[in-house]
Amino acid sequence: MQRCEDLGIANLKIIQDSELFCFGTDSVLLSDFARAKSSDTVVDLCTGGAVIPILMSAKTKAKKFYGMELQKCSFEFAKKNVEINSLDGRLEVICDDIKNVLNHFPCGSIDVVTCNPPYMSASAGFQNPHEPKAIARHEICTNLKGVIEAADAILKFGGHFYMVHRADRLCDCLFELRQHKLEPKRLAFIHPNPQKPPRLIMIEAMKGAEPNLKIEPPIYVNI
Amino acid sequence: MQRCEDLGIANLKIIQDSELFCFGTDSVLLSDFARAKSSDTVVDLCTGGAVIPILMSAKTKAKKFYGMELQKCSFEFAKKNVEINSLDGRLEVICDDIKNVLNHFPCGSIDVVTCNPPYMSASAGFQNPHEPKAIARHEICTNLKGVIEAADAILKFGGHFYMVHRADRLCDCLFELRQHKLEPKRLAFIHPNPQKPPRLIMIEAMKGAEPNLKIEPPIYVNI
Repeated sequence: MQRCEDLGIANLKIIQDSELFCFGTDSVLLSDFARAKSSDTVVDLCTGGAVIPILMSAKTKAKKFYGMELQKCSFEFAKKNVEINSLDGRLEVICDDIKNVLNHFPCGSIDVVTCNPPYMSASAGFQNPHEPKAIARHEICTNLKGVIEAADAILKFGGHFYMVHRADRLCDCLFELRQHKLEPKRLAFIHPNPQKPPRLIMIEAMKGAEPNLKIEPPIYVNI
Repeated sequence: MQRCEDLGIANLKIIQDSELFCFGTDSVLLSDFARAKSSDTVVDLCTGGAVIPILMSAKTKAKKFYGMELQKCSFEFAKKNVEINSLDGRLEVICDDIKNVLNHFPCGSIDVVTCNPPYMSASAGFQNPHEPKAIARHEICTNLKGVIEAADAILKFGGHFYMVHRADRLCDCLFELRQHKLEPKRLAFIHPNPQKPPRLIMIEAMKGAEPNLKIEPPIYVNI
C-alpha cells in the first residue's frame, strides 16, 4: 500500500509502499549526524526512496545530491519523491548497483558519501532473496565491504563518509574503514535507554585522515 | 610516600608508593570484567603493583597467576603485595619487558591474558621519559601493538585477552586485535554519566574466534 508521509521538516514529504522497505529512524538520525557544506556534492548509496538526501537537502546547504538505488521499484519511488519535493536539479537518482559507481562518478570526485546499508548478513534470519524488503535489509546484493569500496572509490582525499549500522557490526565497520584508509573520526552510539547496550552506531570517516577518534555523547531513541 | 590500601574484597591489601603509578578504578573494573576458570593460568602484562591478579585471585578460581612488570621499583611493590596477601605459589611476579614474554612462557600456552597498558601516546602531554609514572602512563617502553603482540604470542588458540584502554583508542584497539587474529568478542564502555561520552573501554578478545561482538550495557563510574 502506498502512503505519503510528512517528514516534519521544511514541508518535505515522502511516498513509500509498505510492500517495500520503508525509511526508519536510522535514516533520520543519519541525516542529522552527517554534515555537508554549500559547495559539496553528496552521494547517498543504497538510497531506497531517497529519504536521506531529501532530509539533508533541508538540513544542509549542499549544492547537489545523488542517490543510487539498485531496486527498480524503490528507484521509482525515489523519482516521485524528488518530484513532490521540487528537488529536480538538486537531487538526482540513479538506478544501478553500487559496484558500478565509477560508471556514474569520476574516481575521487565526491565530497560526501552517506549510506544506510543492508544491516543483516545474507544468512541471518528468514528471507526470500528475491523479495525487495530482503534485498534492502540483508547483505544479498551488497555488503559492508562493497559499500565501503564504493564510497572509497568516489570520495575525494579529505572527503567524508557517513554510515549507520548495527552496533554488533562495530568492529567490522571500524576495521574495514581503516583498511580502506577511510579513517573513523566520529562515532555515535544509539541506545534505547541509558541501561541498555547500543543498538545502532553512526560513523563519520575521513579519507586519508590521521587516527583521532571522537566519541559523541550517547543518543537515546527507542528503536 | 608508601601506603597500604584495603582492596575491599577478601581482606586483600595493596602497598603502593605515591611517587610511583598507583592503581586506579580502571584496574578494579578490569578485574570485574575479566573471567577465568579454575583450570586457567592468567598472565597480567604491565602489572605494576599486581593489583589486577590480586583482585582476580579473589574474584575467580584461576589456579595460577603471573604478573610481568618492567620497572624494578613497581616490581618490588608487587612482590611485597604477593607476600602480604599470602599469594605465594598462586601469584608470581616477573621483572622484565613484555617484549621478552616468550622467555618466560611457552608460545601458545596461556589461557587468559589481562592488561591495563600505558594509555597515552609517547608524545602526549608533559612527561619525563625516565620517570616511573611516565613509563606507566605513556607509551614509552611499550605501546598498544607491543601489548597485543605479547598477548598473542603466549595465548592458546581459544584463549582470552582482557584489556582496558581510553575510549578514543577504540578504533586502534579493535583494528590491532583483529589484525592479530585476537577477535573482539565483548566490549564495555565506561561513562562518567548517561549524558557524557565514554572515557574508557574494556575489551574481551578471543584468539582465533569468529567475528561476533557483544556490547555490554554502559557502566557509569565517575572517572
